[in-house]
Amino acid sequence: MKALSILGCTGSIGVSTLDVVRRFPGRFKVKGLACGGNVKALEEQIRAFKPEAVAVRDGKTASALKKLLGKNSVKIYHGVEGMAEVAALKGVDMVVSAIVGSAGLVPTMAAIEAGKDVALANKEALVCAGPLVMSAVERKGVKLLPVDSEHSAIFQSLKGHRKRDLLRLTLTASGGPFHGRDMTALKKVKPADALKHPNWEMGRKITIDSATLMNKGLEVIEARWLFGVEPERISVLVHPQSIIHSMVEFVDGSVIAQLGVPDMRMPISYALGYPGRLVKDIPGLDLAKVATLSFREPDTEHFPCLGYAYDALRAGGTMPAALNAANEVAVQAFLDNRIGFMDIPFVIKGTMDAHKPKVPTRVEDVMQADRWARGKAEKVIKDKQMS
Amino acid sequence: MKALSILGCTGSIGVSTLDVVRRFPGRFKVKGLACGGNVKALEEQIRAFKPEAVAVRDGKTASALKKLLGKNSVKIYHGVEGMAEVAALKGVDMVVSAIVGSAGLVPTMAAIEAGKDVALANKEALVCAGPLVMSAVERKGVKLLPVDSEHSAIFQSLKGHRKRDLLRLTLTASGGPFHGRDMTALKKVKPADALKHPNWEMGRKITIDSATLMNKGLEVIEARWLFGVEPERISVLVHPQSIIHSMVEFVDGSVIAQLGVPDMRMPISYALGYPGRLVKDIPGLDLAKVATLSFREPDTEHFPCLGYAYDALRAGGTMPAALNAANEVAVQAFLDNRIGFMDIPFVIKGTMDAHKPKVPTRVEDVMQADRWARGKAEKVIKDKQMS
Repeated sequence: MKALSILGCTGSIGVSTLDVVRRFPGRFKVKGLACGGNVKALEEQIRAFKPEAVAVRDGKTASALKKLLGKNSVKIYHGVEGMAEVAALKGVDMVVSAIVGSAGLVPTMAAIEAGKDVALANKEALVCAGPLVMSAVERKGVKLLPVDSEHSAIFQSLKGHRKRDLLRLTLTASGGPFHGRDMTALKKVKPADALKHPNWEMGRKITIDSATLMNKGLEVIEARWLFGVEPERISVLVHPQSIIHSMVEFVDGSVIAQLGVPDMRMPISYALGYPGRLVKDIPGLDLAKVATLSFREPDTEHFPCLGYAYDALRAGGTMPAALNAANEVAVQAFLDNRIGFMDIPFVIKGTMDAHKPKVPTRVEDVMQADRWARGKAEKVIKDKQMS
Repeated sequence: MKALSILGCTGSIGVSTLDVVRRFPGRFKVKGLACGGNVKALEEQIRAFKPEAVAVRDGKTASALKKLLGKNSVKIYHGVEGMAEVAALKGVDMVVSAIVGSAGLVPTMAAIEAGKDVALANKEALVCAGPLVMSAVERKGVKLLPVDSEHSAIFQSLKGHRKRDLLRLTLTASGGPFHGRDMTALKKVKPADALKHPNWEMGRKITIDSATLMNKGLEVIEARWLFGVEPERISVLVHPQSIIHSMVEFVDGSVIAQLGVPDMRMPISYALGYPGRLVKDIPGLDLAKVATLSFREPDTEHFPCLGYAYDALRAGGTMPAALNAANEVAVQAFLDNRIGFMDIPFVIKGTMDAHKPKVPTRVEDVMQADRWARGKAEKVIKDKQMS
């Protein structure tokens, strides 16, 4: 029986994780849960899975949850420290890290420092602090298993093959809902349009990131650290059907790819069951029915965020953290109808241009750059609104 | 330095193998060569690669070769025994088994019995005598590395994953040049039409087998023994671009596939270099340029040979050997313009219907069924010509 803490338990990945847990009774025990402010959903999860401890965003939310629960022995923590408590809970074998954004970094590091294996959906932790996270993983000897479908695909494709034979990683991208639109049309995109992803059901933040191709940019940075591969050897290929989840090319020209129906439960269950595989109850891949897989180069002119991610990797140090923070601010502003769709890359570019990257030696250095970039991004937005 | 004997050295696979050897000076030494009757090509290879021993079809061919060579220290063998001598040559590490047809069985077994690793292109050895070959491989503790692009793909896709998680093997098939034609058109197919394969450059026999889908049927039987998977868990998918070379599905619905440009030097160099990979000098796979991969179910009505292969596996014993022998006879008769294209399945069916399979305990039992089926197939052809 594998004991789990799930950080981000009411989000898309968290709910899918609990769905997998429910389908394999006796295989998993949920010991810890953490979320932001959705106490109604959390209450139901507490009654269903009976964790030892939970954490929510702040003290006020904790009180609201307590009231909802009535007589219940679950320990309730709050704030970043609370998330870290749940991540480091005694007896937990694996932490599913699925908090959205750089807010996931501190709890993810807490899990690693406590010697837990981590199933990582919170790509921003690696984006912001890749070298720090990976050195902690090595030092503590824990497993870091990717939950992103692309990185799970690469992880599975590399397995059994020699790292020294690796030539290139290729991340596939659906291309988002707006591929092929011209600049005038892109400028008019509304949040409701951008929230409709053609293939994957995901949270709001990542769905907007998919539409701008920033999600793929963040994934390039994530892959760089997770697999230890230089950015020049990571490429992106648009593949609208999202059937080939990603691939790996070796020095002899041979390519190994992982394929499947686009269902997040697949990479989640792979990470949860690792090194075994959990028998699926989702439909298998029927390629004769899919009939056609297509591929094209990404359009970096209309979707500049992907290029910014490579720029941030080249600049190094805290630049990826600044890119990520600016993106989080810009996406929120777009969802709040404060800026347009094409202002997202504008805000990121403006923030990156002003950022002087430093080499971070601890998580606090990263969080400081994160805070700075959030302030700067808000300023870029304000300046834009005034002009 | 890996010492090689190459059986079938003047055929398509043999020539490609020597091409790979030539590109990696210092990595391989050719100690033995064997072919049928192309003494002119063999003479050139002897002068270029300076093997210790060679073998040709018969004594007459051996004499012709001797005359051509003049003063040369190479040892010349002939006949099946001669091929077996070259296969078992002292100091040879790996035998590339690329003789066409069941004629490859005895030399392949000789290589295994002599403790040599085998790079197997001669699928008929496994088709005719799968259980005998595999038990010899196990008993002698040698490596059996597939050279067929499909089986090399499955071998690479299974690597690093647990056998018990395997759900299904899917062999891809180009579908051959005649997919979509109606029966009237198929009956009129001439050898010259059938010898034009859309994607792969191969020998005459295998190119005709590709056009009838018998090649895929033989590959199903080969996969059954090579990977120890029941026929119900081996499927065939038509994929006209031949980019995905084959794939493996696991119990969680995850599919691992191997892809690459269709170039036989890739699976050959994988087998030669195993467990390493030889750096390619062939162009890499550019999926954005390929743009589209398509898939459909095979048409077993117009191409019944594929179904016959599954029938032969179900019947067991010597039935696959009978299927293979009847096919070899029928393909030769078609190439000689003695029968039509759609008579190939007719001859195979007629032979299989008359065959009473026995469980072979030694290679001679298999060769006896092979001889019987050749006689029967010739009789079916004669009866057809008289009617």
